[in-house]
Amino acid sequence: MQTIYSQPESCERWGVYELALPGKTAGNPFEDYKIQGVFQSPDETVRVSGFYDGGGVYRIRFMPSFEGLYTYTVSGSFSDETTQGTFKAVAPGENNHGPVRVKNQFHLAYASGKPHYSVGTTCYAFALQKPDIVENTFQELKKGYFNKLRFCLMPKHYDFCLQDPVCFPYEGTPMDAGILTRQNFSDDNGAAPGNHWDFRRFNPAFFQLYDQMISRLMELNIEADMILFHAYDRWGFSKMSMEDNLFYIRYVTARYGAYRNVWWSLANEYEQLKHLGVEDWEVLAAALKEADPYGHLASIHNCEKFYDYSRNWITHCSCQREDHHKTTEFTEDLRERYGKPVIWDEVGYEGDFPHCWGNFIPEELTRRAWEAVLRGGYCGHGETYLSKDDKIWWAHGGQLKGDSAPRFRFLLEFLQDVPGCGLKLAKLRDDVHFQWDDYVAVPEDAAYLGDYYFFYYSIWRPSFRQIWIDDSTWFDVDVVDTWNMTVTPIGCRKGRFELPLPGTQYIGIRLRRAKDA
Amino acid sequence: MQTIYSQPESCERWGVYELALPGKTAGNPFEDYKIQGVFQSPDETVRVSGFYDGGGVYRIRFMPSFEGLYTYTVSGSFSDETTQGTFKAVAPGENNHGPVRVKNQFHLAYASGKPHYSVGTTCYAFALQKPDIVENTFQELKKGYFNKLRFCLMPKHYDFCLQDPVCFPYEGTPMDAGILTRQNFSDDNGAAPGNHWDFRRFNPAFFQLYDQMISRLMELNIEADMILFHAYDRWGFSKMSMEDNLFYIRYVTARYGAYRNVWWSLANEYEQLKHLGVEDWEVLAAALKEADPYGHLASIHNCEKFYDYSRNWITHCSCQREDHHKTTEFTEDLRERYGKPVIWDEVGYEGDFPHCWGNFIPEELTRRAWEAVLRGGYCGHGETYLSKDDKIWWAHGGQLKGDSAPRFRFLLEFLQDVPGCGLKLAKLRDDVHFQWDDYVAVPEDAAYLGDYYFFYYSIWRPSFRQIWIDDSTWFDVDVVDTWNMTVTPIGCRKGRFELPLPGTQYIGIRLRRAKDA
Repeated sequence: MQTIYSQPESCERWGVYELALPGKTAGNPFEDYKIQGVFQSPDETVRVSGFYDGGGVYRIRFMPSFEGLYTYTVSGSFSDETTQGTFKAVAPGENNHGPVRVKNQFHLAYASGKPHYSVGTTCYAFALQKPDIVENTFQELKKGYFNKLRFCLMPKHYDFCLQDPVCFPYEGTPMDAGILTRQNFSDDNGAAPGNHWDFRRFNPAFFQLYDQMISRLMELNIEADMILFHAYDRWGFSKMSMEDNLFYIRYVTARYGAYRNVWWSLANEYEQLKHLGVEDWEVLAAALKEADPYGHLASIHNCEKFYDYSRNWITHCSCQREDHHKTTEFTEDLRERYGKPVIWDEVGYEGDFPHCWGNFIPEELTRRAWEAVLRGGYCGHGETYLSKDDKIWWAHGGQLKGDSAPRFRFLLEFLQDVPGCGLKLAKLRDDVHFQWDDYVAVPEDAAYLGDYYFFYYSIWRPSFRQIWIDDSTWFDVDVVDTWNMTVTPIGCRKGRFELPLPGTQYIGIRLRRAKDA
Repeated sequence: MQTIYSQPESCERWGVYELALPGKTAGNPFEDYKIQGVFQSPDETVRVSGFYDGGGVYRIRFMPSFEGLYTYTVSGSFSDETTQGTFKAVAPGENNHGPVRVKNQFHLAYASGKPHYSVGTTCYAFALQKPDIVENTFQELKKGYFNKLRFCLMPKHYDFCLQDPVCFPYEGTPMDAGILTRQNFSDDNGAAPGNHWDFRRFNPAFFQLYDQMISRLMELNIEADMILFHAYDRWGFSKMSMEDNLFYIRYVTARYGAYRNVWWSLANEYEQLKHLGVEDWEVLAAALKEADPYGHLASIHNCEKFYDYSRNWITHCSCQREDHHKTTEFTEDLRERYGKPVIWDEVGYEGDFPHCWGNFIPEELTRRAWEAVLRGGYCGHGETYLSKDDKIWWAHGGQLKGDSAPRFRFLLEFLQDVPGCGLKLAKLRDDVHFQWDDYVAVPEDAAYLGDYYFFYYSIWRPSFRQIWIDDSTWFDVDVVDTWNMTVTPIGCRKGRFELPLPGTQYIGIRLRRAKDA
């Protein structure tokens, strides 16, 4: 019987159950040996792959989807022995609601049933910064502005983000970065001469870093929207062979698949990886789905043109705006076209960058988020302020400098009050007295139709509006100032009534069926 | 020989030459008699109709398009005699550049050749207000904010504009308006009971009022964009028979066709006249063109859906935005689709109305105008502030209350500096080093390509930008703040250079080929 380094006796439902086992080290353990496990309970049987973590240690991770007694068997060429055992999957802790799934076709909820209203942000290279910067990032994340973080697994090379990462994913040496400046950044991504890597030998320290990051995000109830491939690269990681890409995917899925908060983002700006076509992405997606027994949320993010989100492996649209001027106002069109949740992961960044996507005023970024929500979709935050510390939230994390982040938390709190799970844009119909220029959200769940209305006025600033839902229902009426983050109760109203409004932009009116009426 | 009340001996080229003649009054002189004139010079022969102006007076008006001696013959059943005479068409005065025509396919110029950069505004019912209000309107117009005024000939009944006009176009009596309020305004336009009109007997005082208005606008070099039909009506003028519509068109064209500053707008929000289909509009348009020997600019304005501007009689697109969020950014698409000048006559109004189209912040309205100009089109101003005096620029004229009007004058001044006639959006090409997110206007005239560039940053606020046109040309560089109305010279630049910018919205960079370089 071999020594088992780690073999816990229990694990929360939707927690990470991990076994650490000794194994063979001759040759290249990343490539030369296999490790598989079978986890079985009365409710499920799941086969998972393990991975080599350096220092002679193999690990296998499993997320139990049910409570109860699990038995397992771990075997493979990594060892001449088979390991068997049991553990008990116990009730989840207070903050553990399980992985996020699609719900109501266009929305998301945790496995527990609790709605997940996606309010994300982006810190592409946050994990690969020096520890003090990483701590600053987590300090900001603790403020509850966001419940999803988009980040790249691979290091990032792009304007204003040219430093080498604290460590690299592979054994080898990077090119000399001493002469890099913003000006000599090249769009010819990756594969610059001077890099020497063994794409079959992972650097365990690099991936252990992400174990920690994903765990810490999980503790904060933040989804880890992990981007597997991207083009902003000078080290050649974006130009590996398809075999190496698949080798990497299998390692990453074995390693991180058991974290309930993981979402797969196959690529950021997939078109920018110009040597990969749709056929290649589909091969990589198939490998990803094959290796993920949990069915984590998965998508692929565009640069200029949406991927075909109707593909079966894609659980939700992960959009960058196609149009500079009109963005989240297309949410309803995308819902209709793809029949899936619409998440605008990039519509522009609050900041002062030279690039048009990176110098929005906070009001406009916030407005775009509300336009998405109004139409039954979601929109993420982003921030790109050039600052003295050279740390930009979008790339490095660190400290937030802008004004929109608290507004995203306000939006999240607003959504948590919606009955059922999620909103959709109401159709202007004859039987409800909406005006032709009303934009009104109503609950997605048919059971709650008629209980809740949200009128949103966007860039407009009416000094008053008439509301007329029906003549028999009393509603509690609130004026919601989405920029100043105030909810002002107006009182109970019925029938046709005129509401004075502040005459400023970004105002909404919320009607909730009165409980005592 | 009959008495001639008025028979001037000379007239400016593009001025109004008018003859006033006595004629028959038995029966209905508006309908029962004809009056036609033939005006002849070495350069042209023009046949025009005259009109009855009440009190036994018939008038015939003619605009000479050339200098030189004209002879004329006036005849018709209105009189048993034929009137003949001559007059001299002299050189136009300093402010007389003739009628506006299409130039460079997508732009406009006066007949003299001087570019006309359309910067209009809308005061639908300004002419039918009490005299002090009309004087206020002209006081504002004298400030030079605009060079075109859109207005309705027929009285207007709509929210916040419910008063009876100072006079009516027909003999008869209107319905009692005593009980009208905004709340009982009905979309079922026109033909309310209680109106009694003779649609074959015009009220000369009504039309004489417009003689004055058009003349006064002409003196201010303001084009009179006259809307012939609209639906916002409680008197029945929008629901006349097609025969009465044609009778009206013939009267209006005979009366106003000789004013060089007249533009014909066949209808405002044509779809709202629900009893008239495209076939009807085409019949009315044909009558309009038949009766107009001068080829005045002519179009028809939409409510929700653009008319088919490719029709031959339409000289330019007169657009209301089809989309609430993205408007003048479609200018290039419309240029490509219709091959004609694109004038956005309504993209929203600065104001505080309850209606979504009437409560823009001035910055957004101004931005929409610059987006149009950037793409080789034009965009008009509009203002809808509810105020204590109940006078709203959009309907009554009166006093401007907003902040965008001076910005439209600034835009006009900016355009007057463009070489040639008009701008167009540059294509991002390899031989010019535009960045992918540059929006750059260049001269429409090929002769001036390379001499002038205008980069516009719209809602974005870059803290700096790189510019790189070519390495051999020196440019005078200005930073243009389209909101604060400043032009800040940066000096002469060549090759690739980085420009610090204010980091605020609505900024442009103008490059003009240096004269001494």
